[in-house]
Amino acid sequence: MQIIVQKYGGSSVADFVKIKLIAKKISEVTKKDTGVVVVVSAMGKTTNQFIEMAKNISENPPRREMDMLLSTGERITMSLLCMALNELGIDSISLTGSQCGIITDDRHNNARVIEVRPFRVQDELAKNKVVVVGGFQGVSYKRDITTLGRGGSDTTAVALAAALNAERCEIYSDIDGVYSADPSLVENAKHLKEISYQQMQEMSSNGAVVLNSQAVQFAKEKNIAIYARSTFKPGNETVVRNFPSGKSKGVFAVVYENNIIKVLFNSKSEKSFNDLLNNLEQGQIQIKELNYYLFGNNLSASFLISPKDHYNWGKLEHNLREIYKDELIFEKDYSTLSLIGEGLNKDNTVLIESKKILRENKINIFGISTTSYRISILVNKEQLEQSINLCHKNWIENE
Amino acid sequence: MQIIVQKYGGSSVADFVKIKLIAKKISEVTKKDTGVVVVVSAMGKTTNQFIEMAKNISENPPRREMDMLLSTGERITMSLLCMALNELGIDSISLTGSQCGIITDDRHNNARVIEVRPFRVQDELAKNKVVVVGGFQGVSYKRDITTLGRGGSDTTAVALAAALNAERCEIYSDIDGVYSADPSLVENAKHLKEISYQQMQEMSSNGAVVLNSQAVQFAKEKNIAIYARSTFKPGNETVVRNFPSGKSKGVFAVVYENNIIKVLFNSKSEKSFNDLLNNLEQGQIQIKELNYYLFGNNLSASFLISPKDHYNWGKLEHNLREIYKDELIFEKDYSTLSLIGEGLNKDNTVLIESKKILRENKINIFGISTTSYRISILVNKEQLEQSINLCHKNWIENE
Repeated sequence: MQIIVQKYGGSSVADFVKIKLIAKKISEVTKKDTGVVVVVSAMGKTTNQFIEMAKNISENPPRREMDMLLSTGERITMSLLCMALNELGIDSISLTGSQCGIITDDRHNNARVIEVRPFRVQDELAKNKVVVVGGFQGVSYKRDITTLGRGGSDTTAVALAAALNAERCEIYSDIDGVYSADPSLVENAKHLKEISYQQMQEMSSNGAVVLNSQAVQFAKEKNIAIYARSTFKPGNETVVRNFPSGKSKGVFAVVYENNIIKVLFNSKSEKSFNDLLNNLEQGQIQIKELNYYLFGNNLSASFLISPKDHYNWGKLEHNLREIYKDELIFEKDYSTLSLIGEGLNKDNTVLIESKKILRENKINIFGISTTSYRISILVNKEQLEQSINLCHKNWIENE
Repeated sequence: MQIIVQKYGGSSVADFVKIKLIAKKISEVTKKDTGVVVVVSAMGKTTNQFIEMAKNISENPPRREMDMLLSTGERITMSLLCMALNELGIDSISLTGSQCGIITDDRHNNARVIEVRPFRVQDELAKNKVVVVGGFQGVSYKRDITTLGRGGSDTTAVALAAALNAERCEIYSDIDGVYSADPSLVENAKHLKEISYQQMQEMSSNGAVVLNSQAVQFAKEKNIAIYARSTFKPGNETVVRNFPSGKSKGVFAVVYENNIIKVLFNSKSEKSFNDLLNNLEQGQIQIKELNYYLFGNNLSASFLISPKDHYNWGKLEHNLREIYKDELIFEKDYSTLSLIGEGLNKDNTVLIESKKILRENKINIFGISTTSYRISILVNKEQLEQSINLCHKNWIENE
């Protein structure tokens, strides 16, 4: 039996009409000798609504309870989708992350999948049932419900595809694949037919939301091809898979991340800095682009954080200000713009020319970091859209 | 460690303000050497909203998927309540029916608790945590999520109280205990300070919604005292427990059930009647007051059903009409009124006088059934309220 895993994002299951349409779509791929596993997200904005509900009760809700709350969203979708499939005469069963054997660590809100034991999924497929899975959730070895962070349903889909040795994994959303830039910001963004795991991960890690970075990592490890497609506008697709990169293509995409905060820390105490890092770790705030200097007795550090998805950031920021007072400065309203490509630092031409173009157009540059796959530039959020378009025009449209 | 189990119904946790008030109430009973287990229902009308959602997708949703959907309601409440407790500095943890070890049969939508394995609850109590439990749900031996039917959170509370050997079980709702009649219909309904398990079960089985009948059965088996109280108006309470009934007290309560359908069946085929019973069983429709006659070759049967809580009754009724055509007649809009007491059939005085009073007031009587604990009378729903008041005045207010 060949197995296909499909994943439908929140906008694809946002209302009853769409859920019925998805059921119809699924009924068209079910046939003898094909096992179909469907991973669903919470309906539309449900997850955000739950976060708002929690905020009505507490500014700083316990992470474990947050996971208990959030995980119900996908359960609502999956049971409704099974009802819709049943109406079409398709035999199906909904399974929670736990019932699917998605075992995670106990880092609540942002758990990592450590093992998948899909015995129940296999049993139900063997009974010719479509298996509908609640994405975004797993169960820790302590038998508590966990969630996998933003985009976690992608991870569920790819992790299951890997564990089931699936033929392929299809990720459906409201965008028909991966573009050289966000089409809502860049008019001439180019659709990409094919992209490697490495390239996709670089894009996802730097702000592209079309596919989750941990999901791509799973696909890479098990060599599962991902097909990113539009749910309701079939035709185009992007295939993410392993392929020889050939000659260096230079910059092929421009991605961005908003709501970046630059953190400046000055202190005479190294312990104080270590404490700060621990506080951020406990708050599950990832730090990027750390610079750390000692001038005599004075320790000076700067780094970037993007806590926009952390529902309890407000409380944490307040606490950090109380603890570190004048030692700590938050500079807000930055964005990062990242040029993604290969061999970008083999010489400095991409860096030098990008800087020149931005400067000529009066874009203020507040920081730069480079790797072989990426050049990231820190700008004011007001100048982000213009910066993206300038870089995209120069490196992609004019090439 | 003494253990207290509290249960809060849907109206007690209907919004964020109420959830915070409940957290405050709980914080007042937590102390050293007292383990507190709190069972919660879904917020306000959530369960009904889920049923409406399902109806948007399917007239006849699979029962298993319905349970998956409905069980999320209590999970939302329990996680929010833990967040509110955390705000007050009370250490707590939410547990699903499955995590509490509430093992049921696989009769989805109306499952019976067959065993409780509360190891996780005991572990968390030993860590001095308040354990907040999602009521109304369990897990079948097939490891599927089940729900326990209307009022099922009461069953969760009493079943846990029994398994944990709790000191007592407190059931909080918007009514301060059990009355001799529904206070919203009968002005002079009498508050009952104390009532036996047997009496309470008789009331619950015949329409009183203040306590679930299966819950009272559990309490009786394990001799757990139930305290029925008002959440937000403390003071009064009704204790349900074992006590010697003393001399017969006659009628002590008048309860009722609405939306009763009288089913008439006439056929030449006994197989046809057996099929009908099987159809109703598959639809989980309980039949009451069966009368069955054979006149020569003609089989004639009548019985009562009250499918108001069966979300898929509409579809089932349609199917039954298609199958049995002229053999089957549904007469709708009846109500039953039941006088509850002890030794009611030791002679016929209660029956004769009740009939007389109702007749004198032009109440049409469509059926009567009697046991030692109960006299039930079938009336038109329009005449129900008047009938209740007439009987209550005669047997309770004037005694």
